[in-house]
Amino acid sequence: MSKLEETVKGLKYGADGLIPAVIVDAASKAVLMVAYMDETALLRTIRTGKTHFWSRSRREYWMKGESSGHTQEVKAIYTDCDGDTIVIEAIQNGAACHEGYFSCFYRRLNAGGGWDVVAEKVFDPDKVYKRGE
Amino acid sequence: MSKLEETVKGLKYGADGLIPAVIVDAASKAVLMVAYMDETALLRTIRTGKTHFWSRSRREYWMKGESSGHTQEVKAIYTDCDGDTIVIEAIQNGAACHEGYFSCFYRRLNAGGGWDVVAEKVFDPDKVYKRGE
Repeated sequence: MSKLEETVKGLKYGADGLIPAVIVDAASKAVLMVAYMDETALLRTIRTGKTHFWSRSRREYWMKGESSGHTQEVKAIYTDCDGDTIVIEAIQNGAACHEGYFSCFYRRLNAGGGWDVVAEKVFDPDKVYKRGE
Repeated sequence: MSKLEETVKGLKYGADGLIPAVIVDAASKAVLMVAYMDETALLRTIRTGKTHFWSRSRREYWMKGESSGHTQEVKAIYTDCDGDTIVIEAIQNGAACHEGYFSCFYRRLNAGGGWDVVAEKVFDPDKVYKRGE
């Protein structure tokens, strides 16, 4: 086992074998998205320099941008004191959110207890994902 | 049920009733820590303006800073497209990490496949937590 494989194995995964990965924009530090990796997805992320995840709903590996072209180029990978979370600084090509926003976190809680959309769409999801075709 | 309670209930919690909360420094946007909230912890966070979590290991509610005084003052709360993650911008009093670092994410993966500590401690945990007393 390589040193890298040992390091990846040494992180703390949940009962489902997954660790949450917070993807932040390398330039602005804005949180772009949170998704889940297992050891394989994390090793693919490190070795290819592009973020790979495990989809809990589809039960399959996916590379961010495989449909949209909106890949994420990994600049740095961090873990926390407990080794149970990953933060990845990445250069976001296009936008992170499948709804068309640069970040998935485009809704902010308002004083009335509801969500306000606080960002502008940067692409049209219907065009990028060719829905309905 | 108030609008706020409806909004909190409307988020997607895991099978364990928890949602991950990414706490970021309101000034630098640095990710400080990731911890877990249930509906009660999130409502307490919103109503008190200080972050509250559910500890999965101790199985109890805790307020960040209740031992150390290093509380987090909530400035804004965001959710993502799926409504299954929270991002909170906060003013961090003292430091976020119980190991003495400002952020829990003080280790970065190096080219050799190991972790480098890339931050300086800003407090002495033995003094702040009065270990051994």
